[in-house]
Amino acid sequence: MVLPKVAAFDVFGTVVDWHGSICEAVEALKLDVSPSEFALAWRSLYQPAMARVRQGEVGWTSIDVLHRQNLDQVLDRFKIEHLSAAQKHALNQVWHRLKPWPDAVEGLQRLRKGMMICTLSNGNLALLAHMAKSAGLPWDLILSAENYRHYKPDPKSYQGLCETWDIDGASLLFVAAHKDDLDAAYAATGCKTAYIVRPREFGPVQRVDLGQEARFTYHAEGFIDLAQQLGL
Amino acid sequence: MVLPKVAAFDVFGTVVDWHGSICEAVEALKLDVSPSEFALAWRSLYQPAMARVRQGEVGWTSIDVLHRQNLDQVLDRFKIEHLSAAQKHALNQVWHRLKPWPDAVEGLQRLRKGMMICTLSNGNLALLAHMAKSAGLPWDLILSAENYRHYKPDPKSYQGLCETWDIDGASLLFVAAHKDDLDAAYAATGCKTAYIVRPREFGPVQRVDLGQEARFTYHAEGFIDLAQQLGL
Repeated sequence: MVLPKVAAFDVFGTVVDWHGSICEAVEALKLDVSPSEFALAWRSLYQPAMARVRQGEVGWTSIDVLHRQNLDQVLDRFKIEHLSAAQKHALNQVWHRLKPWPDAVEGLQRLRKGMMICTLSNGNLALLAHMAKSAGLPWDLILSAENYRHYKPDPKSYQGLCETWDIDGASLLFVAAHKDDLDAAYAATGCKTAYIVRPREFGPVQRVDLGQEARFTYHAEGFIDLAQQLGL
Repeated sequence: MVLPKVAAFDVFGTVVDWHGSICEAVEALKLDVSPSEFALAWRSLYQPAMARVRQGEVGWTSIDVLHRQNLDQVLDRFKIEHLSAAQKHALNQVWHRLKPWPDAVEGLQRLRKGMMICTLSNGNLALLAHMAKSAGLPWDLILSAENYRHYKPDPKSYQGLCETWDIDGASLLFVAAHKDDLDAAYAATGCKTAYIVRPREFGPVQRVDLGQEARFTYHAEGFIDLAQQLGL
């Protein structure tokens, strides 16, 4: 098997469990709210916030700042008014410490033996670096929409990734737990695609279609499964 | 001691031994030339090439491409005409495999226990990622002039580094074996500075003033020495 030169990974939900990690942070603060509802509400504001940047309503704004703005909206919605500015900042930093899915670190260690592995996340570089250090994620390179100033699924983010590595799409494997991210990566670059099944991304209730799609190159239950399919 | 949040490193000459690594590659090719003279000639074209980019004579051009263009000039100068395109490409890739100074890996491992460590090199991201993988350099984040599209010593490169990390200069330690790089980093950001003595950067003949300067925060014989001075 000819391996791709580079495997690029979506991060939130694909590599790390944002729902579970936010639930833990909310529980630790003893907020009078369902941790899962809080996590889902916070995450639900993520795409609309990036859409405002993509559409030029606001200038380039990092995910750290968008998360912090969104947190204010969520706290309003749940009528949580007692948190200090320092507590809100600390809560926002949970995105820097999201925990990896159980297979993620071992799977990445195996995959990086055969190819370069990198992120392509909408998370900002500092967030991704802190996350990698706390979770032990062995990236060869951390890349972000911040590098290209275009949030996924803008084609310029995926095309920028290929330019950074000086490769064409045929040498790229894009890895994500989100079918729309894979479709956008393929449309922009012609890359190979690996769909990762993450049934608990949104908590105990499955909310998205996890079925196998013939259009994706690989369908894997996690990164160890993907490494095995690639012979690594 | 309050540690800086981030230590950012110059790479060529500070972390890795470009002169020795190029000499080895030239010797392996059995070129009829002094390996040291070849290495010095190739490196001497590096600053003028970046200057043409900085001054806008040419658009943004990666170091991989500049190195390859410079290699043609050096081969011409030494009247080496028998290398194939593939051999020239392979020789150019030596910059992706430069070997670390003996103290570099252990020193970085100690330093990263107390702060985030990253590069700020004029080398492009792919080059730095391949180098880190082959040399075992444990960066928390790889940053390049490529991130900011401004080559050092343009102040925008150092200022961009602070923006990426969301820190002010007081929280940054800039580390380099080159006094002009440290001076430019300080002028742009007000950062702390660490001068690293690398007496063999240019080969056996010392070509630059290695003396201690009162204006730098630290003066160290290598990264292990720097880690000890920082209590790490």
